[in-house]
Amino acid sequence: MRVLSGIQPTGRPHWGNFFGAIHQYIDLQEENDGFYFIADLHALTTVREAAELRQNTLNAALDLLALGLDPKKATLFVQSHVPEVSELTWLLMTGTPMGLLERCHAYKEKKAKGMTADAGLFTYPVLMASDILAYDSEIVPVGQDQVQHIEVCRDLAGSFNHTFGETFVLPNAKTLDHGAKVPGTDGEKMSKSYDNTLPLFGNVKQIRKQIMRITTDSRAMEDPKEPEQDHLFQLYRLFSSKDDVDKMAAMYRRGGFGYGEVKKAVAEASETYFAEARSRREELEANLDYVHEVLRDGAVRAREVAAKVLRRAQTACGLR
Amino acid sequence: MRVLSGIQPTGRPHWGNFFGAIHQYIDLQEENDGFYFIADLHALTTVREAAELRQNTLNAALDLLALGLDPKKATLFVQSHVPEVSELTWLLMTGTPMGLLERCHAYKEKKAKGMTADAGLFTYPVLMASDILAYDSEIVPVGQDQVQHIEVCRDLAGSFNHTFGETFVLPNAKTLDHGAKVPGTDGEKMSKSYDNTLPLFGNVKQIRKQIMRITTDSRAMEDPKEPEQDHLFQLYRLFSSKDDVDKMAAMYRRGGFGYGEVKKAVAEASETYFAEARSRREELEANLDYVHEVLRDGAVRAREVAAKVLRRAQTACGLR
Repeated sequence: MRVLSGIQPTGRPHWGNFFGAIHQYIDLQEENDGFYFIADLHALTTVREAAELRQNTLNAALDLLALGLDPKKATLFVQSHVPEVSELTWLLMTGTPMGLLERCHAYKEKKAKGMTADAGLFTYPVLMASDILAYDSEIVPVGQDQVQHIEVCRDLAGSFNHTFGETFVLPNAKTLDHGAKVPGTDGEKMSKSYDNTLPLFGNVKQIRKQIMRITTDSRAMEDPKEPEQDHLFQLYRLFSSKDDVDKMAAMYRRGGFGYGEVKKAVAEASETYFAEARSRREELEANLDYVHEVLRDGAVRAREVAAKVLRRAQTACGLR
Repeated sequence: MRVLSGIQPTGRPHWGNFFGAIHQYIDLQEENDGFYFIADLHALTTVREAAELRQNTLNAALDLLALGLDPKKATLFVQSHVPEVSELTWLLMTGTPMGLLERCHAYKEKKAKGMTADAGLFTYPVLMASDILAYDSEIVPVGQDQVQHIEVCRDLAGSFNHTFGETFVLPNAKTLDHGAKVPGTDGEKMSKSYDNTLPLFGNVKQIRKQIMRITTDSRAMEDPKEPEQDHLFQLYRLFSSKDDVDKMAAMYRRGGFGYGEVKKAVAEASETYFAEARSRREELEANLDYVHEVLRDGAVRAREVAAKVLRRAQTACGLR
C-alpha cells in the first residue's frame, strides 16, 4: 500500500510527537511503500524567516533519518522539490467550494480568535489534498485533528473524478493510536502549546534537569500509590521493558520511594532509548552531503509518481 | 520594457475584444518585449469540459497569430506549460491577507448575486499576480475592470519584498484605450453578456446576415443625421480610411440614404479589414504543427525567465 505522511518542519520534535506520531508512521515503512515528505510549503504559512525555514527543513530530515526512517525502504523528500504538487493544487482549487474551506477547523479557529488569517491558511487543505493525490496515496496516517482534511481531500478527488472521469485514487485516513498517553512536565498532555515538552534531541544534561523538575504530588513517601494514575510512571513505561515496568509498578503499590528516584529512572530509560538515534543523528550531521543526496533521490522518486498523476489530471480536464 | 498580457480562452473573439484589447496589446510587441499567454489555468474556473478547453486554447493561439502576433517579436505560450507559475502561486498565497481577496470585485459580485463561488475564483488574483511576477513584467495592459488585480499584485509583491528582501519587480498597469466605442448589434456596448456581438472569424455570410439585422432607428431616409451619434457609423469608422469616413459622414449630414446601404458598407469594410487575418488563420489551421511549435518555443523562453524568478523567490523565503 502507498502510505503518505507529511512532517511540518516548524520546530524540534518532543516525546509526545514521537510516540503519538513519528514512531507510528515510520513503522509503516516495513509493510508499505512509504512516502514521507517534509512540508516546507505548509511551513511557509507560519515560518516567515528564510534561515529558520532552511534549518527546520534540514532538522526534520536529520530527525527522521536518525529515528529510523530508512531511505532503502521508504521515500523521503522535501515537499517543494516536487513542482507537480503545486501544479495539481490549482487544478483542485478550481473545483473547491468556498464553503468546504470555510468549515475547516484550523481556519475557523483562527478566525474565531479574531486573528487575521491569510489565504495560505485558508487554502491549506487544498495543498494537502494535492500532496495526497499526487502520489496515488492509499493510506494517510493522521492525528484525530487531521481527519477532516482527509475528508476534504476525498471530496475534492471524488468531485474531480465525477466531473472529468476517473483520475485520482481516493485515500483513507488511518487514525494514529493515541492509546499511549504522553504527559508533559506538568502532568497534562505533552504539547508545544502547553510549553511542557521534553525534546528527543538536544543537550542531555539540560533534558535531565527538565525531567528532574517534573511536577509531582505531595503525598508521603511511605504511601502506596496507584501507578496507572501517575504521570511519571506513564513516562517511564514508554521507554521500558515489560519486566522493568512491572517492577516499577510493584514499587508504586508498595510505597516507600521518592519521586526523585523515579525521575532518575525516567531520565536513564529515555537516554538509553534514544541513545542510538542520538548517535545516528550526530553521524548524519557530520555527513550532510549524504542527507542531501537522500533528499535528492527521494525527490526523483516522488516526481516520477507525481508527474504521471499530474499528466493524468491535466489530460482529464483539457490542459493537455 | 517587458509587457505581459494574458488571454482567457473562453470563447471566440468579437469586434469589441479586438478594438478594445487584442489590437492594442498586439501593437505593443513592436516597441517592447511582449509576453503573451493563453490563460488555460484561469479558464478552468469556468470551462469544465476537457475538449472545449483544449479547443479554446488552440483557437486562442490561432486567433492571436492570425491577428498579427509575431513569434519572432513576442513570446506566445500557454499558461499551464510553465509550472513555475503554479509554484510561485503558493509562495504568494501564504502572504495574502484574506481581506485583500474578499474585496476583489469578481468574487464580491458573484457572492452578491448569491451564486456559489469556488476557491479558484476567490484566489484567482493570486494566480494572476504570479503570472505577472514570474516574468518580471513591467507593464500589464488591462481593461479598467482589471486595474484592481494589478493593485493586488503590487501589494503581494511589495509585501513579499518587505518580508524576504527585494525579489519581485513591481508592475504597472497600462489601461487600454476605450476611446474607440464598439457598439453591438443592438447599439449598446458590444459584449458577450449582452449577446450582441459580431465575431472576427467565422462564416462570412452568417456574419453579413448579423450585420444586416443590426437595430436602426426609424427616421425618414431623407432626414440629415448626425453621424457621431449613430452606431452604424461608429462601426464603419473602425474599418475605414479617413477619406472613406469623411465621405460617409458627409452622406449622413446630407441625408437621403438608407441604413441598408450603410450596413452593406460596414460588412464590406469589415470583410476587407479582416481578410488578411482570415486567410492567415486558414493557413495556420492547415498547419497546426507550426502552431504547436510556436507554443513550445514560447514555453521554453517563458520558462527560462520564470525559473530564474522562482529560484530568487524560493531562496529569499528559505525553500532553497
